[in-house]
Amino acid sequence: MKVLEEKIREEGRVLSEGVLKVDAFLNHQIDPSLMVQIGKEFANRFRDNHITKIITLESSGIAPALTAALELGVKVVFARKRKSLTLTDHVHVAQVYSFTKQETNEISISKEYLSEEDHVLIIDDFLANGQAALGLLELVQQAGASVAGIGIVIEKSFQEGRSKLEAAGVRVESLARIAELADGEVTFLEHTAGGTTK
Amino acid sequence: MKVLEEKIREEGRVLSEGVLKVDAFLNHQIDPSLMVQIGKEFANRFRDNHITKIITLESSGIAPALTAALELGVKVVFARKRKSLTLTDHVHVAQVYSFTKQETNEISISKEYLSEEDHVLIIDDFLANGQAALGLLELVQQAGASVAGIGIVIEKSFQEGRSKLEAAGVRVESLARIAELADGEVTFLEHTAGGTTK
Repeated sequence: MKVLEEKIREEGRVLSEGVLKVDAFLNHQIDPSLMVQIGKEFANRFRDNHITKIITLESSGIAPALTAALELGVKVVFARKRKSLTLTDHVHVAQVYSFTKQETNEISISKEYLSEEDHVLIIDDFLANGQAALGLLELVQQAGASVAGIGIVIEKSFQEGRSKLEAAGVRVESLARIAELADGEVTFLEHTAGGTTK
Repeated sequence: MKVLEEKIREEGRVLSEGVLKVDAFLNHQIDPSLMVQIGKEFANRFRDNHITKIITLESSGIAPALTAALELGVKVVFARKRKSLTLTDHVHVAQVYSFTKQETNEISISKEYLSEEDHVLIIDDFLANGQAALGLLELVQQAGASVAGIGIVIEKSFQEGRSKLEAAGVRVESLARIAELADGEVTFLEHTAGGTTK
């Protein structure tokens, strides 16, 4: 997605060979018009898949999930990273280890809002090691729901997230795929492969 | 806001005299079309106030803040509830005590995304004791920015949040104002006062 790649080049910051900071428009400050374009792109890629619900993970997944849900005319459920006092029973739960924060969180979705009748699109902001996406996938499986695919805003293609998800038989659609972070520069996968960028 | 009050009556659950659960459309599952209406209502109430930025608090504030920001043509910044490894320096920080979770969180916004040139609309999902709103207000003050007002989706008017904010000289606009939670029923303020509900 060209407009997203341009935004990453202009406003993203490469902190190390593994870390891209996109706090300027996705993870802390949010650019609403970019989010609408991202939502439309996800909707276009999954429009024929009869999605009934989008699930994501708080907090940075909420904005792109919401704009995609608006386009597809479905509701969003965001998984919570730990239990709150008003939501302790009747939840699907999975463990997710965060390499960034170096901690394990319990993520949960109430059984009320995800059922075996649902055909789910999972959306998240980043795909790196795949821990969050696999955790969300586990919640969907616990609910007996089916998965249409996973929509990712920014994929760090040099990490193993995509291969793990594909090994689990899940379709992965990433709007920007990063081949390399080096010398403060972002190299996108399609560009290095000489292909065109959507 | 009539459509919101109806939604609260239909899908909200009164768990006790102090607790209203709106996980069905706001705090866990999100109804995107309702969020768009909420965003438009906030925008209408603050359209002449030359807002430059909306700030909110993760996670449940993000959806209504995003739809309001889309209408007003400004960016959103969501305050984080604790520091992450990629955002440790150059932040405004305030302490917020949560009565629901019985814990104190540090909330923070990067100095990069909030400056003295900003005229801010603060948006949050709930107003009860006012702790979160006062924390956000403190972040804005630390930045030297000015505040146009605070937009709240659901106000528990029987708690002291609004009076604290008004005492601080801040305009509060709440889309639904709850006078009482009793016997499993929600009573709205405008209805008890015999007035009409917007």
